Amino acid sequence: MAERGAERLRGGIDLGGTKIQTVVVDGRNTVVGEARTPTPTKGGPGDVAAVMVGALRTAAEAAGVATADLTHVGVGSPGQVNAAAGTVTSARNLPGWEASYALGPELAAQFGTPIALGNDVQVATDAEAQLGAGRDYSSMLGVFWGTGVGGGIVLDGRPWLGGGGAGEIGHVVVKLDGAPCPCGRRGCMEAYAGRNAMERRARELHAKGEATELFKLAHKRGRERLTSGIWAAALEREDALAGKLIARAVEALGAGVASVDNVLDIEVIILGGGLGVRLGQSYADKIAAAMLPHLFNDHRPPPVVVAELGDLGGAIGASLLTPAVAASAA
Amino acid sequence: MAERGAERLRGGIDLGGTKIQTVVVDGRNTVVGEARTPTPTKGGPGDVAAVMVGALRTAAEAAGVATADLTHVGVGSPGQVNAAAGTVTSARNLPGWEASYALGPELAAQFGTPIALGNDVQVATDAEAQLGAGRDYSSMLGVFWGTGVGGGIVLDGRPWLGGGGAGEIGHVVVKLDGAPCPCGRRGCMEAYAGRNAMERRARELHAKGEATELFKLAHKRGRERLTSGIWAAALEREDALAGKLIARAVEALGAGVASVDNVLDIEVIILGGGLGVRLGQSYADKIAAAMLPHLFNDHRPPPVVVAELGDLGGAIGASLLTPAVAASAA
Repeated sequence: MAERGAERLRGGIDLGGTKIQTVVVDGRNTVVGEARTPTPTKGGPGDVAAVMVGALRTAAEAAGVATADLTHVGVGSPGQVNAAAGTVTSARNLPGWEASYALGPELAAQFGTPIALGNDVQVATDAEAQLGAGRDYSSMLGVFWGTGVGGGIVLDGRPWLGGGGAGEIGHVVVKLDGAPCPCGRRGCMEAYAGRNAMERRARELHAKGEATELFKLAHKRGRERLTSGIWAAALEREDALAGKLIARAVEALGAGVASVDNVLDIEVIILGGGLGVRLGQSYADKIAAAMLPHLFNDHRPPPVVVAELGDLGGAIGASLLTPAVAASAA
Repeated sequence: MAERGAERLRGGIDLGGTKIQTVVVDGRNTVVGEARTPTPTKGGPGDVAAVMVGALRTAAEAAGVATADLTHVGVGSPGQVNAAAGTVTSARNLPGWEASYALGPELAAQFGTPIALGNDVQVATDAEAQLGAGRDYSSMLGVFWGTGVGGGIVLDGRPWLGGGGAGEIGHVVVKLDGAPCPCGRRGCMEAYAGRNAMERRARELHAKGEATELFKLAHKRGRERLTSGIWAAALEREDALAGKLIARAVEALGAGVASVDNVLDIEVIILGGGLGVRLGQSYADKIAAAMLPHLFNDHRPPPVVVAELGDLGGAIGASLLTPAVAASAA
């Protein structure tokens, strides 16, 4: 039985569209083992689950334990999560994952420990609320700026999930009849600020002759997609196209996040996600400035702060979930 | 002591930018007296309070009681309401009402009964939540489409006020760099859908030569402003300019209200306000249709229903408030 001090270890998995981040944490929520691996881009849910299993096993080895010794493993997942049944349906950005897949039972069998499933954005918000930048506040909005733009809401200390689909701040309309969004709609905040939409726009403008180092940087790093690191590197080199598209994203985030604050009048905005964490507090400040012209309560604008748990927030938050799927033998 | 059955009577005042609506209700929330009068457009808070006093006295006379016999009088007010102190500050659309004014103590002295103050939009939402179109739901958004566009939020059966300034849905941005809003910002939902903004736009287009009967109708009715009734009459006559501006308002309401639902994923949307109540369910249906292209959870769109308490909702809701200002002698 693995312990640190008097308390047992837990596992957490953040299942993202680009990478799978796993952690093992102790009773004080200190990370004692971690592993990260790219998310498969081909195959189906079973292939993704197999990679998740490998990544958590690596984190457990780093912590010096077997997965069966963990009190439980939590998973933050995109798509429609049914925590009680342990299933995930329509997981966006994951290969071949439209139908319902029994992820919880599969992982329970592989790990030999109980499994908890939750929504990826909400578990990351809960982690910041309990352990990170939100711990001194009771109401907050988590803004996860990455492949898309996700939102997590905590009101009076409790997650607000609505009918299960709350927090879709990426699809707040910031421009009627505006740019096409990867979701198929038009004018959503994500159509301007999501990394997928930004990459699509960059390719279009580059094809039309606008100079940029974005795709050279990707090629040098052996990447097919424009990662957050590539955007950050292009900004450092003062790449004009990257600067223009990031400024457009910041403007859209300012309007959309201000709109949410006009509705909810919350205490703090926590900026996470791949781009949010990578670009850091100077960009959180730019978003705060872009919000100001649209804020109704502009005499007391909410602070915009970067997620303190950084890239690990989603996995740590997943480890805080209460398991609903019992352990089973493989 | 005035009673109906075993229960005593309460007063309610809805202090609006255009009219002051008063009611006296019994213990079953049945209206047993009411009076309505235009809001003064000149003077200051004292003049407005004097008109409120006269209007509630008329409602009390209609109910056959003196105001001192009412258990209390509730007031739904615009501006910053301090319920405990009984003060109202910066009441928008009311004459000379920027500084704090002790409305509660003044009314308590005039009526000889305790006074309760609340936010106008929130009391109207609470009335619908408890007694009206929202009574079968636990989470809802009240959309008050009138001079401006106000919002009231109920989550899990409780009003959500945030830091006191929540529900400003009229200032959700629907078009970056869009039309000027009476609030001084650009692209707000209210810049397209608020009656003040619509009237301004109608005057501009009429001055540029667009034909409309809107101003003739106002003149015939002896009105300086385009009331909800005038807009409704112009629509009935198929006035092209009125039709165009109302369609633009519905489009903006569709995008803005859908954005709020994408954030909160609520159960029902209740359409109130002067225009909302006047135009009725056929326009609620048009707003629902305009929301659909922007709704993230479009497989289960929330119903959009007209406020059941109609024009009296604000005053009835005010009568439901719990008094914080004790009765006093004039």
